[in-house]
Amino acid sequence: MTQTMRVALVGLGNVGRAFLELMTIKRRVLRERYGLELVLTGAADSSGAAFGAGHIDHANLLRHKRAGHGVGQYPRLGHRGMPAAEMVRQVEADVLLEASPVNLRTGQPGLDCVRIALQRGMSVVLANKGPLVVAYRELMDMAAPTLPSPVLTGNGGGWLKAGWGSQRLRFSATVCGALPVLNMGQRDLVACDIQRVEGILNSTTNYILSAMEAGHSFDQALREAQAEGVAEADPALDIQGWDAANKLVIIANAVLGVPATLKDVDVLGIQDITPDDLAAARARGQRVKLVAVAHRQNDTYRFSVHPAALPLDHPLASVSGWEMGIVWHTDIMGVQFARVDERGPIPTAAAMLRDLVNLYA
Amino acid sequence: MTQTMRVALVGLGNVGRAFLELMTIKRRVLRERYGLELVLTGAADSSGAAFGAGHIDHANLLRHKRAGHGVGQYPRLGHRGMPAAEMVRQVEADVLLEASPVNLRTGQPGLDCVRIALQRGMSVVLANKGPLVVAYRELMDMAAPTLPSPVLTGNGGGWLKAGWGSQRLRFSATVCGALPVLNMGQRDLVACDIQRVEGILNSTTNYILSAMEAGHSFDQALREAQAEGVAEADPALDIQGWDAANKLVIIANAVLGVPATLKDVDVLGIQDITPDDLAAARARGQRVKLVAVAHRQNDTYRFSVHPAALPLDHPLASVSGWEMGIVWHTDIMGVQFARVDERGPIPTAAAMLRDLVNLYA
Repeated sequence: MTQTMRVALVGLGNVGRAFLELMTIKRRVLRERYGLELVLTGAADSSGAAFGAGHIDHANLLRHKRAGHGVGQYPRLGHRGMPAAEMVRQVEADVLLEASPVNLRTGQPGLDCVRIALQRGMSVVLANKGPLVVAYRELMDMAAPTLPSPVLTGNGGGWLKAGWGSQRLRFSATVCGALPVLNMGQRDLVACDIQRVEGILNSTTNYILSAMEAGHSFDQALREAQAEGVAEADPALDIQGWDAANKLVIIANAVLGVPATLKDVDVLGIQDITPDDLAAARARGQRVKLVAVAHRQNDTYRFSVHPAALPLDHPLASVSGWEMGIVWHTDIMGVQFARVDERGPIPTAAAMLRDLVNLYA
Repeated sequence: MTQTMRVALVGLGNVGRAFLELMTIKRRVLRERYGLELVLTGAADSSGAAFGAGHIDHANLLRHKRAGHGVGQYPRLGHRGMPAAEMVRQVEADVLLEASPVNLRTGQPGLDCVRIALQRGMSVVLANKGPLVVAYRELMDMAAPTLPSPVLTGNGGGWLKAGWGSQRLRFSATVCGALPVLNMGQRDLVACDIQRVEGILNSTTNYILSAMEAGHSFDQALREAQAEGVAEADPALDIQGWDAANKLVIIANAVLGVPATLKDVDVLGIQDITPDDLAAARARGQRVKLVAVAHRQNDTYRFSVHPAALPLDHPLASVSGWEMGIVWHTDIMGVQFARVDERGPIPTAAAMLRDLVNLYA
């Protein structure tokens, strides 16, 4: 027997379209391994929304988008100009998948979509960091299960609600795509005192630094990164360190139990790094990386995103090109390092699929 | 409000004693973050068992063991010569923690303890690989939830029952201790086609190879490893590759969905590796490691544990000394590499604690 899960997708950029692709490629695996059948009942992009009687043929919607048409123009079910939030208010779906562009100031339009979905009792899977960075605590409180659960009766303040167990708001795709950074932090480093976290959390800047080391100019490297389809729509978010800072804020809230916001992160991007800086570091036996750090001091953490010259035997010095990586320094689980080599938007879409399956597993 | 969890511990070697230590060190964190209070209601080692009215003072039992006394001699609650399985049959506990020595032929005495605990409705957390290697499928079937659950109604054969969701048999400590190898494979690489897994899964042999590279003799390096307290009681299990093969069998069953046994693994240990071999590899720009490999060919996998000369830019070439590591080659989640630097038995005990918390989270 197979369970049918109705999903609504907001945002049909690279990640959203990759998710539609996975719905086709992984259909059989989802049914055979997990007993799940995904059905797309709603979609929205900046042109409007599509939903209505029956479901949307996801392969057909993908062709429609690839042909350059907006969701609002989708035959029969399209509603031109309808805001995504309105679709979320009306659609019949079990899970909202939110993959619209990051907005660091307001979290919109994703934030309202998430609020409405949670209010309506839906589960939510996010690839978009904006709503979390702007309103982490509010969304976690909304997503907390209403049924009493053994662990949720604990007196742990933010910890338990930030947990993974019965949580219906999932966002493992927001930090390093397919690398399970948040899952490791929340579900695996249980009961640890995490003294320090160091990460290369943004692959665009890491690619640019590696390409500059190999002799490319900054602008040339940036264009290559944008062609790969993982750079943020606004390149300043990557280059100036804000994307890495967003991810650090999510780690702080979700793993370290600290209600940090972007204001708490000391941020410096790679915009002023020159090929000469990289060559000079190399001559000293070092490699320049954009490193996000959470360092515990007494009862709190200091957060920063800075270019840093790392010795070559530092784990993060081995994270090159499109790779990302993270180092956890713990008291009882040693030092753990995880690295991913992932290209394009498929791995991030795959992380959304992971969250979707894990909602019911 | 705090939930009390009653645990019974079988095996009071290095890992079992480390678990008792964590019960003291992490008592406050468990209460505050997870709302959990652990109470030891039973214990057993080769000398006998202890249980009875009330609970066992875990700190006191640790002192008792460190003073060289067996559990059977524990004041008031001790039962000299009582087999562990008998304690498991009689004790009032919610969870069995099994950390007795590995027995590859029979899985005993751990296997019977696990069977009895599952039959009695208890949950089980294993550090001991023996029961899984000998009877993986039997134990998973016993541990399957009896209540209908959406994903468990799927037609996925072995996959769903091998999952993580409502599973009451947990064993993340059995593969690489605190490094969440199994959790990554089961819960994070969702819907992936895993084409190849390569791991350095045994830290004792990895330490020995690194020490030999640094000029120590084989015997000297082995003695150092044994002093650290993570070598298997029977050193042949480590040296001849069987410990790594055990872990590969567990990965095969739990992650790859293949009902492999030790017979399916082509095993060669490091017993014949000489300092000259290491020096020759080094001269070729390579490093010798004991590598466990699962390689997919058509619809199945080939499994091996062999010494291999790796190029220095292979991720596993960076895994040195006490470290362990794993590389997952996937279709939709890129290539993921995880490495841990962990010393002594605390991280393995911490992995048992992780499983315990995750049973209820």
